[in-house]
Amino acid sequence: MSRQRATAFVPGHVTAFFSAHSAERPVAAGSRGAGVTLTDGVTVRVSAADEAGASGESGESDESVAPGQPAGSRTIDGEPGTIGAVEDVLAALGLAEDDGTPRVVDVAVETDLPIGAGFGVSGAAALGAALSANDAFDRGHSENELIRIAHEAEVGRGTGLGDVVAQARGGVPIRLEPGAPGVGELDGIPADARVEYVTFGELSTEDVLGGDTAALSAAGEDALDRLRADPRLPTMMDAARAFASEADLLVPEVAEAIAAVGDSPEKYDDHGAAMAMLGRTVFGLGTGLSDAGYDPEVCRIDAAGARLVTEQ
Amino acid sequence: MSRQRATAFVPGHVTAFFSAHSAERPVAAGSRGAGVTLTDGVTVRVSAADEAGASGESGESDESVAPGQPAGSRTIDGEPGTIGAVEDVLAALGLAEDDGTPRVVDVAVETDLPIGAGFGVSGAAALGAALSANDAFDRGHSENELIRIAHEAEVGRGTGLGDVVAQARGGVPIRLEPGAPGVGELDGIPADARVEYVTFGELSTEDVLGGDTAALSAAGEDALDRLRADPRLPTMMDAARAFASEADLLVPEVAEAIAAVGDSPEKYDDHGAAMAMLGRTVFGLGTGLSDAGYDPEVCRIDAAGARLVTEQ
Repeated sequence: MSRQRATAFVPGHVTAFFSAHSAERPVAAGSRGAGVTLTDGVTVRVSAADEAGASGESGESDESVAPGQPAGSRTIDGEPGTIGAVEDVLAALGLAEDDGTPRVVDVAVETDLPIGAGFGVSGAAALGAALSANDAFDRGHSENELIRIAHEAEVGRGTGLGDVVAQARGGVPIRLEPGAPGVGELDGIPADARVEYVTFGELSTEDVLGGDTAALSAAGEDALDRLRADPRLPTMMDAARAFASEADLLVPEVAEAIAAVGDSPEKYDDHGAAMAMLGRTVFGLGTGLSDAGYDPEVCRIDAAGARLVTEQ
Repeated sequence: MSRQRATAFVPGHVTAFFSAHSAERPVAAGSRGAGVTLTDGVTVRVSAADEAGASGESGESDESVAPGQPAGSRTIDGEPGTIGAVEDVLAALGLAEDDGTPRVVDVAVETDLPIGAGFGVSGAAALGAALSANDAFDRGHSENELIRIAHEAEVGRGTGLGDVVAQARGGVPIRLEPGAPGVGELDGIPADARVEYVTFGELSTEDVLGGDTAALSAAGEDALDRLRADPRLPTMMDAARAFASEADLLVPEVAEAIAAVGDSPEKYDDHGAAMAMLGRTVFGLGTGLSDAGYDPEVCRIDAAGARLVTEQ
């Protein structure tokens, strides 16, 4: 018997720099690079829709759920809405009842993070759905298997390359080799720090990743070489600024914020600001953005990475 | 410039079952197995002894610190005391000043966990010292490097085989292949749960690991095969009980507690109790030990694993 409901929290992830690596199998595709996971993240609640009226008014099947995927309500911050990678995760987990009856599953995604602005919300939602659906319906997958399923869904949808494996680890992940657990390889910069960010709008991951990524990836490999030789936060932020410039991804509002923070005095511990890949978002460590006169969101580096949470 | 002081928290780790794997290089030696990391753990503070009188009365060099290792005070829960693996970590990090002057370093280890009772306190102290000394003196090592240094120190001292890599990951780690990052391989059981434990006294890790471990390791490999085929908490607890019995490690007080919990009614969600390897300690998930009339310590599975903490 399973609990029929579960909740997972997955940290947001801002990528500082990356190189894109395609592969025939999604499990081996992904990105190299580095970034910061955030205590601001995504909470995913999965429940059987026929349990104690859990689905409430939104219990009716959502028309946007494609055939072959579990029926049930889908909400994002309380409003009807679906995320492709989440649907693919649910399909991959095979959530039918023991007798083969399709299961009706409600999925509620909640986040304080802006969507489409470089925080890895789709990857976080996919990984959170994998963790919570596995737990709710006692599917018996290991952590590595669930990360793989979420990574494959995210890569398959073209909405991200390296967020899922980074979000699973937490901290300040360095993606040494692309791909899901068993294929990819991770390291990390040991650090605890305050993180600030300001978002100026959306930037399409699909558009950038769908174009020619050769120059971008060359800049990303350079940045990774620098960070591997000196795995410290100031080196990561410096490599991130060089990457954004070399890969020609800087947008004017972000460039202006980076310059403003960089010009502030006494910023040694803050290491300046950089652009979140891929979003019209600037992030900084310490109080650099506040000190420069911005009104940023404030959180910290998330030490834990993705996890199930027991609702008290 | 570095901060000259830092603090790390490392979760306790109870091993449910294991097999021992020796190797010429400590980086490749270790254990396969599974266990649970705990929100009860070890806090390690490292600081330069000449900073603002931080070392206080215990600032004199401790005679128990061997030549070649940094001088300074060493305390465990406020009393003078050293841990071999911690000293080896400090020596490996090379903490001399830029001009070659030996650095005087104070190390304070604090823990609520019983020592020598199967909670991986020595491994936690070694990993905590690695994280905090690296941060305090800006040594610039990555997480994988610090885990490797602590793992090598622990294996070299014979005080543990798999605690360090498990404590670095957090959660419910499955050690698929022995050794430090880059050699070993980990997975995990995705779970959040209450953990209870009762300790009846010490058991020498060195004595057990120093003897013939062939039968023990065969039992451990069987247990791991079972868990890999079905990575769920009840399977881990069941495999742990079979291991303790087959490896002939059960002590009477622990056997009695396991039987008492197993006999309680309505224990489905608790999955019974098992012996912590290697200690005269019984641990259980949920409220099994309380329900059986014991007065256990209570904590939870630690989602995060080892991390630097910023003292507010």
